[in-house]
Amino acid sequence: MNFQTVMTLKKQQKKSKKFKLKEIREECGVFGIHNFADASTVVALGLHALQHRGQEGCGIVSFDGKSFHSEKRHGLVGDNFTNKETLKKLPGNFAIGHNRYSTTGETSLRNIQPFFADIYGGGISVAHNGNFTNAIKLREKLVKDGAIFRTTSDTETIVQLIAKSKRKKIVDKIIDTLFQVQGGYALVMMSNKQLIGARDPLGIRPLVLGKIKNSYLLASETCAFDIVGAKFIREVENGEVVIIENDTVKSIKPFTKKKPRPCIFEYIYFSRPDSILKEKCAYDYRKNFGYELAKETDNKGDIVVPVPDSGVPAAIGYSQHKKMNFELGLIRNHYVGRTFIEPKQSIRSFGVKLKLSSNKSSIKNKSIILIDDSLVRGTTCSKIVKMLYDGGAKEVHVRIACPPIKFPDFYGIDMPSKKELLAANKNLDEMCDYIKADSLKFLSLEGLYRAICGENRNKMYPQFTDHYFTGEYPVELVDQMKDENITQLSLLSSKSNN
Amino acid sequence: MNFQTVMTLKKQQKKSKKFKLKEIREECGVFGIHNFADASTVVALGLHALQHRGQEGCGIVSFDGKSFHSEKRHGLVGDNFTNKETLKKLPGNFAIGHNRYSTTGETSLRNIQPFFADIYGGGISVAHNGNFTNAIKLREKLVKDGAIFRTTSDTETIVQLIAKSKRKKIVDKIIDTLFQVQGGYALVMMSNKQLIGARDPLGIRPLVLGKIKNSYLLASETCAFDIVGAKFIREVENGEVVIIENDTVKSIKPFTKKKPRPCIFEYIYFSRPDSILKEKCAYDYRKNFGYELAKETDNKGDIVVPVPDSGVPAAIGYSQHKKMNFELGLIRNHYVGRTFIEPKQSIRSFGVKLKLSSNKSSIKNKSIILIDDSLVRGTTCSKIVKMLYDGGAKEVHVRIACPPIKFPDFYGIDMPSKKELLAANKNLDEMCDYIKADSLKFLSLEGLYRAICGENRNKMYPQFTDHYFTGEYPVELVDQMKDENITQLSLLSSKSNN
Amino acid sequence: MNFQTVMTLKKQQKKSKKFKLKEIREECGVFGIHNFADASTVVALGLHALQHRGQEGCGIVSFDGKSFHSEKRHGLVGDNFTNKETLKKLPGNFAIGHNRYSTTGETSLRNIQPFFADIYGGGISVAHNGNFTNAIKLREKLVKDGAIFRTTSDTETIVQLIAKSKRKKIVDKIIDTLFQVQGGYALVMMSNKQLIGARDPLGIRPLVLGKIKNSYLLASETCAFDIVGAKFIREVENGEVVIIENDTVKSIKPFTKKKPRPCIFEYIYFSRPDSILKEKCAYDYRKNFGYELAKETDNKGDIVVPVPDSGVPAAIGYSQHKKMNFELGLIRNHYVGRTFIEPKQSIRSFGVKLKLSSNKSSIKNKSIILIDDSLVRGTTCSKIVKMLYDGGAKEVHVRIACPPIKFPDFYGIDMPSKKELLAANKNLDEMCDYIKADSLKFLSLEGLYRAICGENRNKMYPQFTDHYFTGEYPVELVDQMKDENITQLSLLSSKSNN
Amino acid sequence: MNFQTVMTLKKQQKKSKKFKLKEIREECGVFGIHNFADASTVVALGLHALQHRGQEGCGIVSFDGKSFHSEKRHGLVGDNFTNKETLKKLPGNFAIGHNRYSTTGETSLRNIQPFFADIYGGGISVAHNGNFTNAIKLREKLVKDGAIFRTTSDTETIVQLIAKSKRKKIVDKIIDTLFQVQGGYALVMMSNKQLIGARDPLGIRPLVLGKIKNSYLLASETCAFDIVGAKFIREVENGEVVIIENDTVKSIKPFTKKKPRPCIFEYIYFSRPDSILKEKCAYDYRKNFGYELAKETDNKGDIVVPVPDSGVPAAIGYSQHKKMNFELGLIRNHYVGRTFIEPKQSIRSFGVKLKLSSNKSSIKNKSIILIDDSLVRGTTCSKIVKMLYDGGAKEVHVRIACPPIKFPDFYGIDMPSKKELLAANKNLDEMCDYIKADSLKFLSLEGLYRAICGENRNKMYPQFTDHYFTGEYPVELVDQMKDENITQLSLLSSKSNN
Repeated sequence: MNFQTVMTLKKQQKKSKKFKLKEIREECGVFGIHNFADASTVVALGLHALQHRGQEGCGIVSFDGKSFHSEKRHGLVGDNFTNKETLKKLPGNFAIGHNRYSTTGETSLRNIQPFFADIYGGGISVAHNGNFTNAIKLREKLVKDGAIFRTTSDTETIVQLIAKSKRKKIVDKIIDTLFQVQGGYALVMMSNKQLIGARDPLGIRPLVLGKIKNSYLLASETCAFDIVGAKFIREVENGEVVIIENDTVKSIKPFTKKKPRPCIFEYIYFSRPDSILKEKCAYDYRKNFGYELAKETDNKGDIVVPVPDSGVPAAIGYSQHKKMNFELGLIRNHYVGRTFIEPKQSIRSFGVKLKLSSNKSSIKNKSIILIDDSLVRGTTCSKIVKMLYDGGAKEVHVRIACPPIKFPDFYGIDMPSKKELLAANKNLDEMCDYIKADSLKFLSLEGLYRAICGENRNKMYPQFTDHYFTGEYPVELVDQMKDENITQLSLLSSKSNN
Repeated sequence: MNFQTVMTLKKQQKKSKKFKLKEIREECGVFGIHNFADASTVVALGLHALQHRGQEGCGIVSFDGKSFHSEKRHGLVGDNFTNKETLKKLPGNFAIGHNRYSTTGETSLRNIQPFFADIYGGGISVAHNGNFTNAIKLREKLVKDGAIFRTTSDTETIVQLIAKSKRKKIVDKIIDTLFQVQGGYALVMMSNKQLIGARDPLGIRPLVLGKIKNSYLLASETCAFDIVGAKFIREVENGEVVIIENDTVKSIKPFTKKKPRPCIFEYIYFSRPDSILKEKCAYDYRKNFGYELAKETDNKGDIVVPVPDSGVPAAIGYSQHKKMNFELGLIRNHYVGRTFIEPKQSIRSFGVKLKLSSNKSSIKNKSIILIDDSLVRGTTCSKIVKMLYDGGAKEVHVRIACPPIKFPDFYGIDMPSKKELLAANKNLDEMCDYIKADSLKFLSLEGLYRAICGENRNKMYPQFTDHYFTGEYPVELVDQMKDENITQLSLLSSKSNN
Repeated sequence: MNFQTVMTLKKQQKKSKKFKLKEIREECGVFGIHNFADASTVVALGLHALQHRGQEGCGIVSFDGKSFHSEKRHGLVGDNFTNKETLKKLPGNFAIGHNRYSTTGETSLRNIQPFFADIYGGGISVAHNGNFTNAIKLREKLVKDGAIFRTTSDTETIVQLIAKSKRKKIVDKIIDTLFQVQGGYALVMMSNKQLIGARDPLGIRPLVLGKIKNSYLLASETCAFDIVGAKFIREVENGEVVIIENDTVKSIKPFTKKKPRPCIFEYIYFSRPDSILKEKCAYDYRKNFGYELAKETDNKGDIVVPVPDSGVPAAIGYSQHKKMNFELGLIRNHYVGRTFIEPKQSIRSFGVKLKLSSNKSSIKNKSIILIDDSLVRGTTCSKIVKMLYDGGAKEVHVRIACPPIKFPDFYGIDMPSKKELLAANKNLDEMCDYIKADSLKFLSLEGLYRAICGENRNKMYPQFTDHYFTGEYPVELVDQMKDENITQLSLLSSKSNN
Repeated sequence: MNFQTVMTLKKQQKKSKKFKLKEIREECGVFGIHNFADASTVVALGLHALQHRGQEGCGIVSFDGKSFHSEKRHGLVGDNFTNKETLKKLPGNFAIGHNRYSTTGETSLRNIQPFFADIYGGGISVAHNGNFTNAIKLREKLVKDGAIFRTTSDTETIVQLIAKSKRKKIVDKIIDTLFQVQGGYALVMMSNKQLIGARDPLGIRPLVLGKIKNSYLLASETCAFDIVGAKFIREVENGEVVIIENDTVKSIKPFTKKKPRPCIFEYIYFSRPDSILKEKCAYDYRKNFGYELAKETDNKGDIVVPVPDSGVPAAIGYSQHKKMNFELGLIRNHYVGRTFIEPKQSIRSFGVKLKLSSNKSSIKNKSIILIDDSLVRGTTCSKIVKMLYDGGAKEVHVRIACPPIKFPDFYGIDMPSKKELLAANKNLDEMCDYIKADSLKFLSLEGLYRAICGENRNKMYPQFTDHYFTGEYPVELVDQMKDENITQLSLLSSKSNN
């Protein structure tokens, strides 16, 4: 690392030129399968089902018994891993894959996972969903000792540590490494023998185990099992390392036992509605959020309108409790390509119009309960409110199916900084003014917990990772504490094909 | 045309390798704007809003006062007309555009519209939504007289006729041509002075007129006006030719006056929910279909589940009338790329799983009212019914928000042949058996008319083009009557870049 | 054609941004084969051997007994028709091909030949080397009658005329057409039965007939036969139409018989050194030019240095006659890609340095006889002279192995206009001053004739087309006489893939 | 490194599917410039002049004072670094570049140089011409210690060693590294301050120093200075490290002083004819080889014909001494793309016909002295001899302008293995039989030395690296001695864009 040029590898503010309907909220999807014919074809399908977890890039590494093969692409799985030529380059019965979201400005192919390294004792490939909170500190030490990093990704730190481990067996090298890193993570790894899964000690990031015929699979969510016709066996537990070899699963729990504390945002937004979290589909939890929200709020409004698609389940729950009509007052344009260019004579609310439009005749002169799953920066919400008024709405009452988001994430979620989080900087009235709605209400933290587990938040040992609302970060933020001004510079500006 | 090689230019059966959630139903989208800065940028936005009308290809022709410029691409507008380099190649304040669907196997760039020809008196560019029922007969005559066709598209017949017209003014050449063609069509054309729109004598295909500042626009649907911030002025009438020049609109009605008879499928499926058809959003008509359907059917079922996204409005209407819970029992995967490859160990219901999955916990042990907008071949429906049972549903009652489709279309809709239309070949019970549902009901033709216009179908002068259900073709099928065995061979196998 | 926008289709001055070592001198290459397995693979090889005749684009059309197939590409044959995928798209035992040079600024794929048209009676494909001097006049008439032109190429005029001919047989349609056009041309055409070759009445452009096993071939030069292992049979004669069908050759001579008058520049520059022209390799004629030049000039100089590669044969002939040492004083860089960008701090003689460099130690303090095949604009020559001085040469005496070029060509050669031809605007001393050489000499016209045919130029019936030197244009210049200011505008700015 | 999968990183036999006119003989080209505007544009030009040293890939790394930028491409400089977009991605006044030849089957972009690493203390970029004979041994040790290699190139070993060096200054880290490696090498390196050149202790691989205005440059050959208008200052000496900073050159000689022993093949083949080696152009040495060869051989033959282009200078020298006519009996086709596909009905001597053809009329009935610069496997030579006979030659006497090549190279030259070297396996008569010539003669080793330096080979301290002829390898072959069966497996099959 080049300290002369003041390079720091801390989180860079994303300068997205693209209007995004959702202002947070991408992370990554991981998938792996062992001992199954056409493994990479199966991985492509699994990644397709996990596409909502990351659309920037995707990669597959396969192993054919002799060699590892790697293909990485910018963009969607369906645009890249659907042609035979590409899949032919990924032979073997053993493969892992990764969907990437763009946390940083560096969108080089090099940064797309899975990563591969040819280490002493054999090849190792790693796909990672999450974030290490001490990755930079570890990286600085490794570079000082002569390690050469190829990427700006924290996943490479894992790979370098595995390579440096003096343990003999690959699983031991991995455990050796896990004791050095901190953060929230779900890892799917492949040696030339084993498929290995690992989840952080609190189980912040998700990982599930499935089975198809005799072969085991690992994935971020159960929806990836459904698409390939596999059976969901169980979650990988917090702090668990699972080793799949010869169609058997071995479990190791190297860490001191802790109570699980999964990320509550998997329930609120990330997981696909049909993915199963603790025995129920995410859809059901989200309807419950709407239901609880309805209970907590008054009886204003003529119709319930969701912000599509993320607000739909809560809006259904809300409308069912209130016995109000649920209406698609907003239509989403599902054809979303690259950023459109605005004409010289600029168009009002250009960005949001590319994604949404209003069903004018159904909202005209109506008092609308507008439901969304969360409120982040507030800019999109304010444009949607405006669109409804422009479409003829009489009143717009915004109802958010989760508590106010006041604290950023450092465990793998791409989210604006504290400065940009509306609820971190304004009180309820100020927020309502900002989005120019007639009223604004949030689901309470207690309501949220009730909706998920039917019990109150355990203040001593909270059942979920919920610092977004509470500021209680369950894992130490090592890199973040060293320096407030956290930016990431890449010394080598990298191009797509280098 | 090469009669030795027995070439005929009649409709070729489409051999789509791709599983399609919707079995009919694509046509085309057209858009044009005159005298507005960055015209091609505006056209790109308009085409994006009309993307649902055709995803195979898109093209824009602009005119900068001196030269015409043309860019055509395979695929979506958002993937092609969003980069500055491409739009720079389309300078000028005057542009028209086209979204193409794939009626035939020939997917060459040559067949993507708008077409341009450099004719005596100036350039002319044509974008067409619809189909001419006597195009082949006209083409045969033109070829015999020495015309060289470049494409297999019926739109080129229009262009050749315009070029051959002995009239002097371009508008007269066009009217001369319109008297020779038969069918359903909406044309947007551009000379080096005028933007010209034309709609067939019955107004089968749609065309609307809008205004932004002082400039006029033409589009297939009003949703294309919303995205660019333009105002919807009025529909172009059946049999009307509108000529836009110097920011004024001139109207000519060259044909004998007839009552309008627009395509009823614009109400049922084609138009985007937020597009306005006779003063109401398509969404409202579709909710009405569900409402009428509910009235016509009994009170079975625990929950109402739509086939997403096309069945959603009718399902909402149905649930509101029956006061039953509306539930997203099926989740649609919106990331749809090219066809995925199935692994060797094949996956049950592979195709439908790529697009849909079930919300297992919400459908378990439920008796489901499944709502879709229409039933075409029945194969997709049968897979969806199966998916619901596999997900734990107790009963599945299929309710279709339009009457049985028994007759194919020849006015511009891409639809299976009569042999493949389920309702053309089976009675209600046989259909229900085929899709393996517990029960099956369709909306009646009278119910459909009531839902749209509040009155009965006028048997003498039906208010809509509705041969799908009735077999009453309002325009003579010239080419189709000559030969039953209608296939299309392209003599020159054309490649994408020739 | 759009007369309002003052479009004329006359020759456009080429605005080549690229430094060219040779300032004239590209035309086209044509090739065809009938009834031979893998015909398009053979055509690719033939075009590769003819690559020197045109590097801008190349195309092949094949016929497989049922359909025609066409592939066109920008750039070299070896970069485009060497992969199996491309050749697979060109099935059949019958194929023709074309190498294109860029006469005009319009470099669209559309303008790359062979052209194909689906006309009444069957498909026809045409590849053309040459230029029609009345193409624009014919085009204007055709457009007025309703013909739609797709390209700006004069070859399309031929195709349109063939399509319009009222004759029944394809050969008769072609002959009908040949009577209407004027100019220098060699045509290779393919119907769905026959391979047809045609050469203009004076035989200005070259065309040769070959045979491999039982199959006949046509090509611009014999070198294309050598590469595929075919035998050279004979030249197609001036004014002859050859029809190849069922492995037999039929000859028709529709025109009044004339003495042949081939282009003398095929001897001087165009033909590859190993191609046979009237029984001898072009190399031998060029050595003779050097020999005659040596006889006509005095005994100055220490060494003979050619401008590589075109000046080499003449330099060898010169050195052998004078018994002087032949030396490679200039080295040519054969890796020539696209135009290099000059750095901000500009480099002296940048363009020529990309192509040539001097062998400093071999030219130091030498009096050099510099031999080139011709002198056109003089700019390149002046830079080469300077390079030799900079490299240490004591004297540079320029000797040109053909007479002064004073008149442009209109029969298919890409050449500067009269304004740019050095010899058209300066006398010998002025030219020598311009190139800054110690002396300058040209081969005399009589010397040139002696070197080729051992006899004097027949003033009544010159043996060769030699207007470059004499101004005697053997075919009427119809289009050129109408308008001095001959420019070509393309109304539709065309892109590579439209 | 994965010893389980028996990976060894030793030289892989190249399985070139492409017919090559020259059977050995590619290495690499390096270029660097410091403190000059548009540095990468200048590097592109320098690499273009060095294109003959490697055509497989090319890369440039620039430094703009803050960041390093890297672009790598397959193919030629002129096809890749001539567009503004690419050069814009390489800003800065400081840049180095590399032309790569393909020694191994692995042609991934990852293996294209220059390499870059972000090491402790700053970035470092390395371009290398040559080969380290102990690279594999060093690599094995580094991997065991946890280093992760990204490429299969020995240049990465250098980079890893520099990263691991505990010295503080970058120059010291480099010297630390040079003491560990063995072989023949010329390195051009760039830190964020300095341009550094290094040549192996014997100076086997070439490196020259130039100057333009106040800025210094490094290059493999002087021809790269000519193209950019720079002045040739001097050679970098054997064992010298030059450090360019602030427009001054500092020289360090860390090794025990040795007599220089440059590779004799730079004189015979590699260097461009106009490049200066010890004060004379390579062209002059090669003419001398022909001259000495003429002295050593008898007076047979009518004409002297070179194998183009490499045999031309020696043929000129030969013809001048013998006073025989020099003739271009063979014509080279300079348009060389990818491998052409042979038609089903195969063509005799297909490969050589793509590159060469004979000037039949000039060789007919002649007794030919055929001159080439060297004889490697003999297969090409035998095809050329056959081509001359087929073209009508009476006799063909092959004369080779260097001694018989009996030993392969391990210092950076891509050359067949000993098994394939004709002279390693046959005596003179057997070789003559193999190539089917009338006679065969080689230049003697003494003749070769005389031609270059006018003195005999110093047996104790040979003036040149000449193991090709003598088997005397001047640098220990560490990796090669461990294992006869030297093959290279890449564990990760790498694709172009990973």
